[in-house]
This record gives sequence, C-alpha cells and structure tokens, in this order.
Amino acid sequence: MRRDHVRDLLHQVANGSLEVSKALDALALEPVESLPFASIDHHRSLRQGFPEVIYGAGKTPQQIAEIALRIVSRGDGLLVTRLAPAAAEQLRATISDIQINEVARTAYLAGTEPAPRGTGTVTIVTAGTSDLPVAEEAAVTLDALGNCVGRITDVGVAGIHRVLAKHDELMSASVIIVIAGMDGALPSVIGGLVRAPVIAVPTSVGYGAAFGGIAPLLTMLNSCAAGVTVVNIDNGFGAAVAASRITHS
Amino acid sequence: MRRDHVRDLLHQVANGSLEVSKALDALALEPVESLPFASIDHHRSLRQGFPEVIYGAGKTPQQIAEIALRIVSRGDGLLVTRLAPAAAEQLRATISDIQINEVARTAYLAGTEPAPRGTGTVTIVTAGTSDLPVAEEAAVTLDALGNCVGRITDVGVAGIHRVLAKHDELMSASVIIVIAGMDGALPSVIGGLVRAPVIAVPTSVGYGAAFGGIAPLLTMLNSCAAGVTVVNIDNGFGAAVAASRITHS
Amino acid sequence: MRRDHVRDLLHQVANGSLEVSKALDALALEPVESLPFASIDHHRSLRQGFPEVIYGAGKTPQQIAEIALRIVSRGDGLLVTRLAPAAAEQLRATISDIQINEVARTAYLAGTEPAPRGTGTVTIVTAGTSDLPVAEEAAVTLDALGNCVGRITDVGVAGIHRVLAKHDELMSASVIIVIAGMDGALPSVIGGLVRAPVIAVPTSVGYGAAFGGIAPLLTMLNSCAAGVTVVNIDNGFGAAVAASRITHS
Amino acid sequence: MRRDHVRDLLHQVANGSLEVSKALDALALEPVESLPFASIDHHRSLRQGFPEVIYGAGKTPQQIAEIALRIVSRGDGLLVTRLAPAAAEQLRATISDIQINEVARTAYLAGTEPAPRGTGTVTIVTAGTSDLPVAEEAAVTLDALGNCVGRITDVGVAGIHRVLAKHDELMSASVIIVIAGMDGALPSVIGGLVRAPVIAVPTSVGYGAAFGGIAPLLTMLNSCAAGVTVVNIDNGFGAAVAASRITHS
Amino acid sequence: MRRDHVRDLLHQVANGSLEVSKALDALALEPVESLPFASIDHHRSLRQGFPEVIYGAGKTPQQIAEIALRIVSRGDGLLVTRLAPAAAEQLRATISDIQINEVARTAYLAGTEPAPRGTGTVTIVTAGTSDLPVAEEAAVTLDALGNCVGRITDVGVAGIHRVLAKHDELMSASVIIVIAGMDGALPSVIGGLVRAPVIAVPTSVGYGAAFGGIAPLLTMLNSCAAGVTVVNIDNGFGAAVAASRITHS
Amino acid sequence: MRRDHVRDLLHQVANGSLEVSKALDALALEPVESLPFASIDHHRSLRQGFPEVIYGAGKTPQQIAEIALRIVSRGDGLLVTRLAPAAAEQLRATISDIQINEVARTAYLAGTEPAPRGTGTVTIVTAGTSDLPVAEEAAVTLDALGNCVGRITDVGVAGIHRVLAKHDELMSASVIIVIAGMDGALPSVIGGLVRAPVIAVPTSVGYGAAFGGIAPLLTMLNSCAAGVTVVNIDNGFGAAVAASRITHS
Amino acid sequence: MRRDHVRDLLHQVANGSLEVSKALDALALEPVESLPFASIDHHRSLRQGFPEVIYGAGKTPQQIAEIALRIVSRGDGLLVTRLAPAAAEQLRATISDIQINEVARTAYLAGTEPAPRGTGTVTIVTAGTSDLPVAEEAAVTLDALGNCVGRITDVGVAGIHRVLAKHDELMSASVIIVIAGMDGALPSVIGGLVRAPVIAVPTSVGYGAAFGGIAPLLTMLNSCAAGVTVVNIDNGFGAAVAASRITHS
Amino acid sequence: MRRDHVRDLLHQVANGSLEVSKALDALALEPVESLPFASIDHHRSLRQGFPEVIYGAGKTPQQIAEIALRIVSRGDGLLVTRLAPAAAEQLRATISDIQINEVARTAYLAGTEPAPRGTGTVTIVTAGTSDLPVAEEAAVTLDALGNCVGRITDVGVAGIHRVLAKHDELMSASVIIVIAGMDGALPSVIGGLVRAPVIAVPTSVGYGAAFGGIAPLLTMLNSCAAGVTVVNIDNGFGAAVAASRITHS
Repeated sequence: MRRDHVRDLLHQVANGSLEVSKALDALALEPVESLPFASIDHHRSLRQGFPEVIYGAGKTPQQIAEIALRIVSRGDGLLVTRLAPAAAEQLRATISDIQINEVARTAYLAGTEPAPRGTGTVTIVTAGTSDLPVAEEAAVTLDALGNCVGRITDVGVAGIHRVLAKHDELMSASVIIVIAGMDGALPSVIGGLVRAPVIAVPTSVGYGAAFGGIAPLLTMLNSCAAGVTVVNIDNGFGAAVAASRITHS
Repeated sequence: MRRDHVRDLLHQVANGSLEVSKALDALALEPVESLPFASIDHHRSLRQGFPEVIYGAGKTPQQIAEIALRIVSRGDGLLVTRLAPAAAEQLRATISDIQINEVARTAYLAGTEPAPRGTGTVTIVTAGTSDLPVAEEAAVTLDALGNCVGRITDVGVAGIHRVLAKHDELMSASVIIVIAGMDGALPSVIGGLVRAPVIAVPTSVGYGAAFGGIAPLLTMLNSCAAGVTVVNIDNGFGAAVAASRITHS
Repeated sequence: MRRDHVRDLLHQVANGSLEVSKALDALALEPVESLPFASIDHHRSLRQGFPEVIYGAGKTPQQIAEIALRIVSRGDGLLVTRLAPAAAEQLRATISDIQINEVARTAYLAGTEPAPRGTGTVTIVTAGTSDLPVAEEAAVTLDALGNCVGRITDVGVAGIHRVLAKHDELMSASVIIVIAGMDGALPSVIGGLVRAPVIAVPTSVGYGAAFGGIAPLLTMLNSCAAGVTVVNIDNGFGAAVAASRITHS
Repeated sequence: MRRDHVRDLLHQVANGSLEVSKALDALALEPVESLPFASIDHHRSLRQGFPEVIYGAGKTPQQIAEIALRIVSRGDGLLVTRLAPAAAEQLRATISDIQINEVARTAYLAGTEPAPRGTGTVTIVTAGTSDLPVAEEAAVTLDALGNCVGRITDVGVAGIHRVLAKHDELMSASVIIVIAGMDGALPSVIGGLVRAPVIAVPTSVGYGAAFGGIAPLLTMLNSCAAGVTVVNIDNGFGAAVAASRITHS
Repeated sequence: MRRDHVRDLLHQVANGSLEVSKALDALALEPVESLPFASIDHHRSLRQGFPEVIYGAGKTPQQIAEIALRIVSRGDGLLVTRLAPAAAEQLRATISDIQINEVARTAYLAGTEPAPRGTGTVTIVTAGTSDLPVAEEAAVTLDALGNCVGRITDVGVAGIHRVLAKHDELMSASVIIVIAGMDGALPSVIGGLVRAPVIAVPTSVGYGAAFGGIAPLLTMLNSCAAGVTVVNIDNGFGAAVAASRITHS
Repeated sequence: MRRDHVRDLLHQVANGSLEVSKALDALALEPVESLPFASIDHHRSLRQGFPEVIYGAGKTPQQIAEIALRIVSRGDGLLVTRLAPAAAEQLRATISDIQINEVARTAYLAGTEPAPRGTGTVTIVTAGTSDLPVAEEAAVTLDALGNCVGRITDVGVAGIHRVLAKHDELMSASVIIVIAGMDGALPSVIGGLVRAPVIAVPTSVGYGAAFGGIAPLLTMLNSCAAGVTVVNIDNGFGAAVAASRITHS
Repeated sequence: MRRDHVRDLLHQVANGSLEVSKALDALALEPVESLPFASIDHHRSLRQGFPEVIYGAGKTPQQIAEIALRIVSRGDGLLVTRLAPAAAEQLRATISDIQINEVARTAYLAGTEPAPRGTGTVTIVTAGTSDLPVAEEAAVTLDALGNCVGRITDVGVAGIHRVLAKHDELMSASVIIVIAGMDGALPSVIGGLVRAPVIAVPTSVGYGAAFGGIAPLLTMLNSCAAGVTVVNIDNGFGAAVAASRITHS
Repeated sequence: MRRDHVRDLLHQVANGSLEVSKALDALALEPVESLPFASIDHHRSLRQGFPEVIYGAGKTPQQIAEIALRIVSRGDGLLVTRLAPAAAEQLRATISDIQINEVARTAYLAGTEPAPRGTGTVTIVTAGTSDLPVAEEAAVTLDALGNCVGRITDVGVAGIHRVLAKHDELMSASVIIVIAGMDGALPSVIGGLVRAPVIAVPTSVGYGAAFGGIAPLLTMLNSCAAGVTVVNIDNGFGAAVAASRITHS
C-alpha cells in the first residue's frame, strides 16, 4: 500500500472526515477479489503497470474463463499464457473479440486504456526455427505491455556470420531477448557484441543431453559475456516482462 | 567470409571497377536466405562440404518442406533428420524422388554434384539390436556425406567373444562409430583394441538407472581407453558428421 | 568491427591513400594484445563502456599482474574479481595506488577518464549477513562502472516486515539487485512490490539441501513474480554489469 | 505388540488358562489379513487412529475394490487416494454410498464409529489455483481423520498483501499446511508470521526449471523461517496425516 | 504489525493525542535494529516466542559477537548455531557466562524470563553414533525453547530389535525427532509404530552414494509411514523449532 | 573359448588330423548366429547355464519373433522380457505353446532339457502391492532358470510386525530378493534379520521425490544392513539371475 | 528374538520355574549394551555370524576405542572400517595386539573362536592400481569373516587380453568381487564370462564426469551382463559381507 | 593377439618346430608384466603406437616410480599424467633426465625410437587463461605422440573478433582441440567455421552453476555445430590421444 495513500487516510481521520472504523477497513482492505479457486489481484495494474496475467497451465477452461471475465469487466487488459486448445475455445466463446495466438498459446484483449509505451525497441533473437513458440509468447507479451518489437530469426552460432550480419540491428535495440536451445551459446556471442541489456531464454529444444533445457540454461548462467541475465526454460513471457520493466523504467 | 574474396573486392575497388557502396554491400552481404521462420545458410556447403542439414524436430511439416525446396532448388544435396511421419508425408508429396528412411527417420536427396568421397571405411558398431535406429541415422548421414559404411551389429561386451571375432574388420576401419545403451561399455573395449579414431554414441536404450542415456554417456566420457570421443545421446547424425570430418581431412 | 570504420578504409583505398595490402591488414587486425597466456581485448571499452575485467580465479598472481599492467598502461580502468590473497599482494606491490577490497575480493583502479554515469540508483538488497561478500563484489563493480549504489541489508522474508519497512527505498530504485541464499525467496516478494527491473543473485549460503546455491537458483528461476531475471550463483559481478547495462541504456 | 497384551497372555499361561501352544500362536499372530496381492493391516487403526489407507496408484481396479471391501466389511473407515477414473468407477459399482472426489482423486466412506476429533482448525493455504488438487486431497484426508479444515486460496508471495490480509485467519490456526509450486516461497513468509506448526507441500506446478516440483521442494527444505517441515511433492495426503498427528496429540 | 496496535494508533490520531506525522512514523517503524551488516528483528520473540537465532555460518566472529550483544543487552535469550571455534572463543571473551556446546556447535544464554514450557517430552532418536552432533544441536535448541528432551541413541533398523525395545519410550513422547544418515530408514519404522508427530532429519553421514545426505533425505520424503515430515540435511535446529511449535501450540 | 578346446585343436594340428587353415577358422569361429539386426550367442548356455534371454524393449515384434525362432529351433529354452502386447501377440502366433505372462510381461518356453536345479528356495519379498509386476518378472525368470520360488507380499516397514511375522520363512530362504519402491527401507530391515544373501530391487513405484525409483535405489545402496546388494530399478529379471547364480554355485 | 527361545520361556512360566515378571523382562530384554553414544548389538554374532562391525567415520577416537573394548572384552572378533589415523593410534594404544591396515584403513582382532569358514574362494578383481584401497578393505573383511581370498589386479577392459588371460582363475572362483572406477565396464565383461555370482563395486577413482563414482555406479547398475549386483561407491566392506553371505549359505 | 601371429604359431606346430605345450603357453601368454599393484601392458605400443601411459592420480609416488622404471627399462617412451608434486620429486630422483612439466602436471621421457609422426598440425584453442593447465597437458601428450602442435590462447566468444582474427590459422589445422570452461560455447563457433575434426574439452573453470565443468560439458554435447565430439572434463590427455588417432590414421 502506497505511503501517500496512508497519509491521506490519516489526515481524513485527523480532520474527522473519516471514522476510525472505516479507516481501519481501508487499511485492512486489499483490492483482491476472491473466487472459490482464485484471488484476483486487481491492484497489480497500479503496482506494476499491467493487470495480473493468467497462467493457463493447471487451470480448467472454466476457471480461466471466469477469471478472465472478472478482469475484462473492469476494463483491464487481459493476457492469458500457456493456453491449452480447449481453454482457448472456451475463451473464444466467452469473450467475442479476444485474440488467440496458437503458436504463442496466448489469449489477449487490450484494456480500455492503452498500455503505457516503453522506450525504444525490444529485439527478440532466436537461434533456431524450433525456438519460435517461445519467441512468439515473448512478442505477444511485449506488445500487450506497450513495447515495440523487433525480430531476428534463426541465427545460431554455428553460422556465426548470420549473427554478425545483424550487427546494426542488434546495436540499435534497447533490450535484446535471446532465445536458444541446444548449446545455448548465442547470448554469449551477442552479449559480447552489444552494450544493451541482454535477457537469455533457454528452450527445451534439443535431444539427449539437452535434458529439456538444462544444458542451455547452464550455458546462459555461465555466459562468459558479463551481464547476461537469464529466465526460466521456455519462459518467453518472463523475458518479455523483464524487458518491459527496463523499457518502462 | 574468405580472405581471398575480400582481397578481390579490395582490388576491384582500387582499380575502380567496383564502387565503394557496392563493395560495402558485398562485405556486408551474407549468403543467407531469410524466410519468416528460418535463415538458410547456403554457403555452409562451401565452408563445410555439405549444405545445411534440416533438424526436423520442433519444425512443422510446412516449415520443413519450404526450407527443403529452397535447398533443392539450388541443386544442393538435401538431408533432413528427426523427421516425424507427418513431415515425411509432406516431403514425399512435395519432392517426388526423395528417399525416406523410416527407421532412421531421415529424408535424403542427392545434390546435382556428388559429395566428395572420404578416405577408407567408417564402421558402425552397435551393442544391441535396440540401438539400430541410431545406427541407421548415422549410416544415412555418412552415405550422404560421401563415405563408405561398414556395420557390425549386436556385439555387446557381455559376450566379449562376439567383439573379438570382429577384430580384423575393426582393425581395417578408418573411423569406428560405437553405439551402445545400458552400460555403454563397448567403446572402452574397442578403443583398447584399435588405433583408429573411435566415436562413441550413447543411446537412450535401457531402463531404470540408465536415465534415458545418462548412464552410457557417463561411461563413455570416462572410458579407460584413451582417445575415445563422445557425442550426444542418440546422436547418430553428429557421430557421422564427426567421422566424415575425419575421412575428408 | 564498426561499419563506418570499414567505409573509411574503403574510401581511402578508392582514393589511393591506402594500399590494398595495408587495408587488408587493417581489416584483419584486431585490437587484441597477445601475451603468451592471454589475449587482451583493448577494444572492449569501446564496445561495452568498460575495459576487459580480469577474472582472477585460475590465474597465477604473475599472470594477473602482467595483464593488469597492460591495461593500466593504456590509462584504462582496471577491475579484478575473485582475487586470491597472494594475487592481491602481488598487485599491491606492482600498482601502488590500487584499491584492494578484501570482503569483495576485488582490486580496482579508476581509469584516466571517469566511467560514464548511469541513470538513477542501483539498490542492492541482501537476505542475510552471510550474503555480504557477494553484495560487496556487486557494489565495487557498480561503482567502477559509474553507478550510484544503495543498500538494504539482512531483510529475509522470514521477517517480512523488515522488507516492507523498506518500501519507499525499493520504489525509488532504478534497478534492484536481490541477493539471497537458502530459500532464495526474497526476489519473489520484491519483484511483486516494484515495477523496476529486478536482478536476482543466488548465493551458496546455506547447508544441506541448499546444494551450494542450487536451491535459491531454482527458486529464483521459478519466481512467481514475473520479470525477475537471474545470474549465476554468487555472481555479484555479473549482476552489477547487468544492472549497469540498464542504467547506461 | 502392546506390552500389556503380552503381560495378559503370560498371566493366562501362568494360571493355566491358556496353553503354551496357543500363547505361542497369539504371540506370533499378527492382525494382518493376507490376500494374494496384499497384506491388510487391520490393527493400524489401533496403532494410529485410522485404518490403513489405500494408495491407489499402481493397483488394478479389482485389487483396490477387493481391499476396500475387506476394510468396509469390518466397519472401518475407508480412504483411497490417487484413484484413477476406472478404479473410481469400479468402487462406485462395488460400494454404493462411497464418496468420490474427482479433483482430489479420492474415495471415502466413514466408518461405523466417527473418527476422534482433533483440536482446533487445520488451515490449508495455496499459492495458486493450480495447486488446488493437492489441497483437495489434503482436505478430504483431514476430514476423514476428524479435523476441522480452513482454506486460504491463491495467495502467492508475488502479491504479498494477499497473504498479509489473511493474518488473523493464519494466527488462529492450530496447524497450517502451505501448498505451493514454482518458487515455493510461501511457507517461508507464513512460517515467519505465525507460531503454529507449518507443514509445507511442494507441488509439481510450474514449468522449465521447476523440474516437476524439485524447485519448490528445495526452497521449502531451505526455508529461512525456522521450524517449517516438508513432505513429498504433491503429497497432500501426507501433509494431512502429519497435521492430524499434531491435532490428535 | 498487529491489528489492535493499528486501531490504537488510529484512535490516538482521532482524539488528537497523536500527530499525523508521528502516527505515520509509527506505522512505518519496524522493531528492527540496523547494524551495517545485519537487521536484528527484536520483535521475533513476540511473534514466535523466542528471539531471532543467530545462524553462525558465513558470519565473522566480530559480526556474531556484535549481534549477540545487542540481543543480550535487551535481556532476551541468545542462541547461536553453526558456531565455528574462533567465533566461540570470541563469544566466550565477550559474554562471560555464555554456554558453549562444542559437539552441537552452539552458544546459549538464557533470557531474563524463562522460555514458556512446552507440553510433554520431545524424544530425539538417532540411528547411529555418527548422528550425534545433529542430535545435540536439536537438544540444545529444544532446551532453549523450553522443552523436556528425551533421547534414544544408535537404534538403526539393521538391528530392528533395538528399536522395538524402546517401544514404550517412543509411545510416551509428544513429538519424536528421528535423525538418520545412510539409508534414512528409521523414520519409516518409527512412523509406523507411533501416533505422535514424527519429524525426520537426514544427516550427511555415510559415503559414496549417500551424496552428503541426499539419500536419506529422499528416503524420508518418500516414507511409507504416512505423516512423517522432513527438514533439511543435518538441520537439528530446524527440527527442534518445528517440534517446539507443536509443543507450544 | 575354453582352454581344453584350444588344446584339442592344437593336438589335431600337431598330429596332422586338422589343417592349419581349418584350425585357424575354428579359432576364429564363434558360436554366434548373425541376423541382419542381431548376433545370437548360442554358446551362452554353455558359459552361463541358460541361453541368451531376449530383452524385448526397443525391438520390433518381427525381430523378437525371428530371434525367438532361432533359439527354439535349437531346442534351447526361451525367455523374453519386457514384452509389449503386440510382440506377445506375434509370439503367440509364431510359437504355439509359448507361455505369456501379462503381469510379468514375459514369454517363456522350456528347452528340451530341463534347466539344472538350484539349491534351496529363493524368496521374493515385496513392500507393496504395486511392486507385483517386478516380482512377477523375477518369479518367471527364477522358474525358467530352475529355482524354487517363495513369496511374501506387501510387508512394508510402516507395519513392521508384518515383516517380523514372516521371520521363519525369511530365515529358511537360500536367497532373498527384496522389492520395494518409495522409501526402499525394507531391505535394510530384512538384511539385519537374516544371514542369507539379500538382493534389493528398487521400483519406480511412488510419486514426487521418488523420482522414478532413484529414492529407493539410493536407500538400498546405502543400506545400514551390511552385505545387501542392489540391481537396477524395476529389474526383477536381473535380481533373479543374480539369485540363480548363487543357487547354482 | 528366536522362536524356540520364546517357547522355552513360556514352558518355564507354565511349569512355574519362571515368574511372570521375569519372563516379561526376558521378553523385553534385548542383548544390547547401551553407552551414552552407542547401542552395541552383542547378538549380531548370533544372528549374522560376526559381531557388529564398527564404522569409524564420524566417530571420535575415544568413542571407537570404548566400543571396541566392549566387544573385545566378550571375546568377540573386532573389525573397524574407515579408520582415521588418529583413531588407529588410539586403538593401538588401547588394544595391544590389534592389526592395523593403513591401506585398507581397518583395524582387526580375531575373536576367541575362529570365524566359520566359507566355501571356496572369493576373488577380488580390480580394474586399476588406484582401486587398491577399496580392494584391501574387502580383503581384510573377507579374511575376518572366514573366507579364502584371491586377487587379480589392474586388468581394465582397455586391455581386454589382460582380463582374458585370467580366465581360468575367474572360472574357479566361488564369488567374484569386481572393483572399478572411471567407466566401470569391467563387471560387464567378467559377468559375461563366468557363471559365479559377481558383485560390482564402483570406486571414486577418476576425474571430471566420473562425479566421484556416479559414472561407474550407473554403468554397473546397467550392466548388460545379467545378474551382476552392485554395492555403494568405494564400499569394499559391503561387497565382502555380501560375498561372505554367499560363501556361508 | 594378432591373427598373423597365431597363423605363424600354428604353422610351427604343424611342421613340428614348436611343441604343443609351448604353443599353448604362447597363446595363453600375454605381454603383461605383473607387479603386486599393477599389470603393465607392454604390448600397448604395438596395438596403439605408444606404450601405456601412467595415470598418476590415486597412485603412490613409489608405485609410479616403479611402473615408470619398468617401462623405461625396455626403451619405451614414458608419459605420466596427473602427477602430484611428491611423485614428480620421486621421479626426478629415480630417472635423471625425465622432463617434468609443472603446469601440465606431466612427466615425459622419449623412447629410444621416436614416435611416428602424425600428419599436419593439431591446433589447441583455449577460451581463457584459466584453461591453460588442460591445454598444456594436451600439448605435452601430443608432442609425446609425435604431433606438431599449434596454439591459440584466450579467444572466448564474448570477444568474437578474437576468434575470427584467427580464421586462417584455424583453417589450416588438421585437427582442432577446443578447450573452454564456463559457458563452453567456443567449440560451437569454431565447429561452424572449419571443416576439420573438432574435439571439445570442457574444463572445471568457472563458479556457481558451472558445477565443476558440467555446464560446458553439456554445452559441448549439445553443440549446434554438427560433428563436434567431446571428451571428459579437464581431459586434455584424452583429447590429445583422440587427435593423434586421427593424425596417425
């Protein structure tokens, strides 16, 4: 709860315009809407610039639809990630103009007020074609949060000239999200080329000793290019939010 | 980019036969063809003797077919690995004379020029029948890259005489690829018998504490026979390329 | 190599002021100084705003001192991390006015030109007293890279009011570095409180199933607060560089 | 075997009311009913206050039904966990008034005597909606064992005010079961707020480096709030039994 | 912060006995004493019945001594765990009547008011002699927190009669802490014998595939005796606090 | 190859009854029958008392059937493990009087000569009903190899009296195979009760931190009962062969 | 407790030669001697043919010496393993004619009655010179337990002829203990050559991805030679006891 | 044993020039010299072109010296790796003109006949200064085995231009050994640049989540450059032998 809000409440109590019991309620009250299966945090938008995002995995289509309706009914922007096909169907039936992205597995509906714009461009770089679903999740999220998005696709380090050919584009980005599976080596190369913040996303692409993304995750945590940060495996959403924190700071 | 190519460009600029802006473009230009979902590296053939190989996992049938067409349209040889049945169908429909190998899960079409021949024979040894799909992937790749292929099948160390009976065949190989799951002990025995390079491939065959190939992977990395090298679990393709690097050096 | 540099070289060749062979050399030449045991990247300052930082682990005191002298002799700023006591002694003997920080295990000497200033304050938050060496490494690095540094110490989530009491300080930071061992839960709480970028650093503090930092590393990668990014275990240096990339972007 | 029971037997032997051979049998006899595929421990109720609970995983529907019938035929309470749909069908067909809970994957039938009541309320707290099946398994078990159950749902630490808003409810609980996936940070915060016993349950909710629950498991084992204990991943049943041991002690 | 405290403050503001600015301070003020390297939580005693315990690992002797003095100067009870010999020396020199336990690696000084007594006896059971340091840490902590302590030593399951011989003692305990390394099987046996809460502590005793305590940790998490809870490896302190939460609830 | 066989060959060469080239062939010849996908070791029976057993996993039904026919055609006993339903069908169609055991997933046909009898009884003990498929695989294998088999089912250590009640049966066994998932504690208890060899088999039964059998595997490797040996997870076959090596020695 | 002993007690009670209270004591009494830090199991010799062996790791020299004296004072044989040098000194000072083996890190003193002889020879095979300490621990233990010991040293599979040259010696063994680090492949080869029971011991010899013995442990658990059993890493003692269970059965 | 050797023996037997018993001995005799602690394989030179190399770790100085003397006394070349300082002293005292390399931790003495020369140059590339000990071990081994050695030092991918500047040198190598710790990304870049065989060596350089070399090991196994092979962590020796197998094939 914000300090100036508390100050206002206290002044109202001091000048008699607010009863103690009501101030107490206000101090205790949290802007949380409780469903039997969820506590919706309607003030997250105030705190963090975008309403609570629904993580679709492990929720039933009914649960997702109901939470979504509560958010939309307030005019807030809606974003759902990790959306299974059945839940996408349900959402389409419930909220007519919702935008489903099947590659990204997301649902999106803009709020009544546009999201504040971030500075510059967030460039998403992928090492391979198989990393595209993660890139798409990042792109949808960045867009929802008010960012310009650039893309460089399929420039793995085994063809290092493909990366170098994109030098100018890389240099002009505000933030770079680098998405790679297998050896996860791309963020090290890009981190050494640019000054901008680099957020690395390991993907579960690869087989055998890639261990579902552990190999690129470790590579990225150990990047010899200083100042590369890392998010969870396949977490395009998290990388986008991290980038958006930067472009909105 | 090759140094002699740069030298030629500079001479053309010096003698006025090439404008600065065009030389600049040429220096910047990379022989990469960009699709919305892939960057095809058409110069890999120059650099490494075979065009870019398509790794089928994580790509849609449409993506694979489109990339394949671009490669074939230049007369380059085509090799696709980890090909799912649906993608194989699509390829068969798109490129009439393509060769699908269902055990190896590969698609292959020779280029207009034959691949340069490697020296000697690459012998593929498997410890058990269950290792055959990996062996087949290696065999198809070796063949595509211009190598003679020999095979010794199902000679695990629990019947050590089966290995020893193949002594002459092993001694005459240029490179030996040893494929084993479970205890992964075969490369240690063969590596101690021969002078030739030995490339070990762990497979995900086995149960329980084989952990999807970790057990034989660790065995092979710790081989008490010096000079055995290892590739990723089930990576018959990688072993074949490594062997072909040797036979073409 | 920068594109405008290439353009200039080409123009010089075109107007005859530069011979082809010399241009060729220039294109090939890299601003790297080679010692028998190291290749010093003197252009890193141009590319990334600070000269190459010496990672002290695994290098002999003699190697560190020699590399340091080469950097200092150019007037560049010097930063050495993971400095063992013996190497610190050697540096003190070699470079008289160097600043050794024993808690941070760093050596620092400002360059002849001050580092460009970053915007705002980078606030370093630690969960416990035992995390201080990592925090100190981050602080020294941030300072060397031209950043204002704030600190909040020993505010683990088991006393959640200690965190909440620092709300205003947290809200005013440009970037927050959160350092925690054991359960690594602090970044999740702080990430949910603020809009600013949050960089989490797991430490090897803790025993038993903390596994030398794996436990907080996993916690942070799985933070339920969206947009928290993570660096390697005990990597205060990396977190500082990542923060500085943001404050200088 | 209880000491007073042995004493009685010995007295009966001493006064001739029991033959040696029968006493020997009694000492050897265990209240275990043997089926070809199971040994049912009918005295567990005496030892532990509730009959043996059937762990449904890995048993066929026929096996489950047969064991269930033996328990019910004695008038004991019946609880089955990890019940697959097919086994649930079979149980419904076999025991008419059984209560199937599909979310919890349990079957329950009260015994002829009510379970002894535990003191106070056991409050189940979940970090997210996706943790509900585990919470439900805990709730059904607690109820079967004679406990009052409270619930606080979806109060992850990324919205710390949601937790704090439940402060009074948390303070009044006898035992708190905290269920969380992903970063598993919630038990650390709650453990620092309350004096009551806190039992943490990691869930397999999350993706990537959550590793099927390893991440929250490690977080909880390393909780910086002293005195938090942990049960197996997704083990709502185990947490409930642990809580019930406390409320019945 | 407690709700009744907030209510009082608000009433004082309403009746003019407290200025807004001071109330604001009070609401913001936390009972935390800040040293440059630590934030001491003096209200933990109120919240949890015992003052903050100092975790000695990773702190310098000076830091420990300074924090200890602040706690002692308020008349609070002092407990330090994981105390290195040098820090023990420093404490002995600083606080004359402190009790150092070298096996447990603890320092203890009772507060001016005795700790509230817990109900019943907490019995500590060890599987082997090598587990004694962990048992001793638990015993010192239990004593400091106001509990009666019982002990059963060296009763591993390989001599199952040693466990059974202690049946009566086990049955009479309020809470049982079971400490075991190697196979960690003892809690499963005891958990099946008694109704009381059982807290299992894995130790790093053992070699080879005990992996520093991972083996018994996993055993205990998977205990086939329902309702056994687990704390971190070698965490005698944590088990004692967990037990004390139960005896004081 | 046996030394006396070599001696005979050499004598035949010496007395002229065998040509050098034929002796050379004989020395090189191994009693291995080569199919395109398998090398059948027909002398294993001589070396180890039972023909090569077919490990069904990873082999096609056709491959299994063809190898089986070769073995049966020589009058050798046939045993197939890890048999998928489709392969079982194919075998039934190919070899009319084959015995399929669906729980054990085995196929068996006795050889023309009975297997040599082992001494005493091999007793198979399981901790739970869910361990039965592994027990069944062990039982079928033991029977095929000529052993008497005893069984004790569902006697987990959480009901320790169930184990103790079987004391006489355990004491009379020649070899004991103990099969357990979850905490895997049963072999420690039994290993402490008996003098006979104890072979422990971890199973993949359990959830969460059982990690597919790693937990009981580690428990068993760390058994505090000396002299317990361990085989791979779910490897009932291997335990049976190990036991049979003992009963036939 | 043995059944015939119970029978005798009961008969004595029945004929009045034993009071109930004394019988009760006898039934409760266990042949366990309790020190403050240990419970010595004096009946283990009856149950398992050799008195309790002292595991030296984690015990102080004083504890070891005191336990040793209690065992020796009864005329039982004494064996201590994992004996640190300081404890060895203490033992030498306490028990004059004790035999210390520094390579094996054992102390041994024969009992007043010789250990019963096992049948045949237990042959210890090592893959390399570095495995000798583990082999020595096994040899001392085997000798103490009454077995004949054979040895084959340094016959790793990289020189497979070194193994084959020992064929006759291997064939004549009753039990074979195979000790190997690194790739741990030797038990697979030997297990395929012989019919006798094979017990594999992984050692922590090797570097890098041997991971302190995990690599050979996994190799051995996955041995393609059926019926190889495994003990803990470096556990020469355990292998010897397992072998002795076989030779005494 | 070589086939032609057997043929000769058989002819000698056939023509009476060799008795059966002597031929039998010859067939049985292996060129192995047995010490009490080692079996020296004097024929390895014949089989593999260099005598058995002594792995120094885990052997006493006395053992190493004795084995070394046996090898040197035959005029064979001597190579010892992983040589501890004490063992180096002992060797220097025993064999006067031995060459000790302290960085590489090796001892070397050329044989009376020079090692056969390999074709071309083996180029050793390191990512950082801290990788030099591993590189030095590789260089000493390559030299001992008769290879020309080239070196490129400290060219990590974070300064990609340092790698590219060495393009010509890389292109002219016969085999390239790439040594890297931390992110282990260098082999992927180099593998994509050259056609020659590339052998990757992960090192234990790095901290935190490098896990003693696991991170670069996984990176290299998952290299997106096809045909890169991998050896064990820090295994410069193994990489050199693998390279020498190629240059001598």
